[in-house]
Amino acid sequence: MCENILEYETVSLDDENNALVIIDQTLLPNKIEILSLTEQKDMWNAIYLLQVRGAPAIGVAAAIAVYLAAKQIKASTYGEFYKQFTEAKIYLSKARPTAVNLFWALDRMEKVITENSEKSVDEIKILLKNEAKKIKNEDIDICKKIGEHGLTLIKDGDGILTHCNAGQLATAKYGTALSPIHLGRERGCRFKVFACETRPLLQGARLTAFELYSNGIDVTLICDNMASHVMKSGRIQAIFVGCDRVAANGDVCNKIGTSGVAILAKHYDIPFYVCAPTSTIDLNTPTGDEIHIEERPSAEITEMWFKQPITPKDVKTYNPAFDITDNKLITAIITEHGIIRAPFFENLRESRKKI
Amino acid sequence: MCENILEYETVSLDDENNALVIIDQTLLPNKIEILSLTEQKDMWNAIYLLQVRGAPAIGVAAAIAVYLAAKQIKASTYGEFYKQFTEAKIYLSKARPTAVNLFWALDRMEKVITENSEKSVDEIKILLKNEAKKIKNEDIDICKKIGEHGLTLIKDGDGILTHCNAGQLATAKYGTALSPIHLGRERGCRFKVFACETRPLLQGARLTAFELYSNGIDVTLICDNMASHVMKSGRIQAIFVGCDRVAANGDVCNKIGTSGVAILAKHYDIPFYVCAPTSTIDLNTPTGDEIHIEERPSAEITEMWFKQPITPKDVKTYNPAFDITDNKLITAIITEHGIIRAPFFENLRESRKKI
Repeated sequence: MCENILEYETVSLDDENNALVIIDQTLLPNKIEILSLTEQKDMWNAIYLLQVRGAPAIGVAAAIAVYLAAKQIKASTYGEFYKQFTEAKIYLSKARPTAVNLFWALDRMEKVITENSEKSVDEIKILLKNEAKKIKNEDIDICKKIGEHGLTLIKDGDGILTHCNAGQLATAKYGTALSPIHLGRERGCRFKVFACETRPLLQGARLTAFELYSNGIDVTLICDNMASHVMKSGRIQAIFVGCDRVAANGDVCNKIGTSGVAILAKHYDIPFYVCAPTSTIDLNTPTGDEIHIEERPSAEITEMWFKQPITPKDVKTYNPAFDITDNKLITAIITEHGIIRAPFFENLRESRKKI
Repeated sequence: MCENILEYETVSLDDENNALVIIDQTLLPNKIEILSLTEQKDMWNAIYLLQVRGAPAIGVAAAIAVYLAAKQIKASTYGEFYKQFTEAKIYLSKARPTAVNLFWALDRMEKVITENSEKSVDEIKILLKNEAKKIKNEDIDICKKIGEHGLTLIKDGDGILTHCNAGQLATAKYGTALSPIHLGRERGCRFKVFACETRPLLQGARLTAFELYSNGIDVTLICDNMASHVMKSGRIQAIFVGCDRVAANGDVCNKIGTSGVAILAKHYDIPFYVCAPTSTIDLNTPTGDEIHIEERPSAEITEMWFKQPITPKDVKTYNPAFDITDNKLITAIITEHGIIRAPFFENLRESRKKI
């Protein structure tokens, strides 16, 4: 056993020291280093470099970051304060241009300002702090509810496959896809989890396997290309993944490789569940085709992790960070409000009304 | 550009120095080191450690290795010679217990002895050398024919996806799955190849991307979990893979991850071709279910390639080296005799008769 990473907070506000406090996830699992970030550029970098990652955690981090930016603004008039806030917001929004939770959290913070324009700048700053805290507490509550709903779909002893990390390290607590597993463990369930390593950034190996193992859960690490063989062998009763964005028709944008897992699950007749806080449902995006897929640097594939390059330097690579899972491949989308099944277009609209 | 690896022979006999000569594939692409092996244990290790790998190349290497073992035998009687040959054969056969070509080549060498029991030991040794050379020359011829047949299934400019390495580095020349691509290039075809990196041992990155790139072919390296996204994007017109064994019903045993690629290909309606010398067709194995899947060490996943371990030391892993692709997922099996389509059971039997 090793130190339980779940005893640390993934993302928090240190208001006294004007700091965004995170675990540097790029160093896991070999080193647990807590970063206390006070400069906006360091917070921007933390999001860009995936020191903090996972849609919900990015949302919480962005809310705290923009609050800390607002707190430093010297302006005394509403107009000047709002102008400078907007600059800070635009700056942060560019750290991860495909993360819908980033925009969602920043927009929500902005709304606090525009809805309180009659208040003093100092009063607004306090409201912003409260909103950032609220976003975090809501995330914990949402994740727990997703866990509760997810638990109704599986039973003690089941084999669960997951891709990437949609665990506590991707949220304020519990996680989304891993929430049923953590909650189940608290209640004595013994799930057998298979974690896909999730190339190129290895979040499945470095984060999911580590997070589950350090919390005493039976986890087996596999390479991404072993998922078919493991499913065929009968070891898997359900698949849980997180998501970065759900389009209006139920298409899901998530970590590269998710769509492949979904196609395998369909082939082997294994239920494929997407765990999605309602904030990731984007009714303004009609289908997955309209979602821009971020491409990341070649070095992530060829050099970053390795003792020496794994292919000649000039070999071309293609490194899309996400892919789109077709709604037809999804058994259900689990939000904090419940379990959404097809027809997704109608049922997602209905679900959004509950916010 | 870099040095063209195809100018080196993958596997050859240095009869003067009693050596099996191979490229050490575990050091590619960072170092081209030619090993000249004279001890049986080093030849055994070369196969076990994947310094020489790929079903056809293993067959050629085993034939040369067992010839070199036979050459050293001091016995003057047939009985004693055959006994010692059998010991050497059994020893080599354990280096890679799931490689059908290993047994095929060793059995073929043994047959030279049993069919020439009236000859002197010295005469038999010469026949064994000729047989080893013949196995190699036949492999070159077979690969070229597979390339010719494969070329009829694709056209200039097509996008081709491949998994693992079934290239020249897996055979005596040309390769199986990559033979159409190498042959096509000689004739001016400009294929766009996508090579899956093939975790855990990265043969796609280290060998296929290197082999194609060094031969001036347009190749893009992707992580295994990107295959679904790349297929969905319309970049792929055909998939070519090699194989380690074909069961009587057409189920195919090949590098772990192959079955996943086949399921994705079916989903996206892309033809999936298996390139298989007739020697890999094993009519004595009714279906893929009867094929034993070799499990390899955890360190291949977690430590071997990396600057530091990618997951805590005690996290469990599962590392199957192969998987079984169901015959229903296979568009055609390409052998040196032609293109075999379903019903595979009947058509594979027919094809074996041509030997």
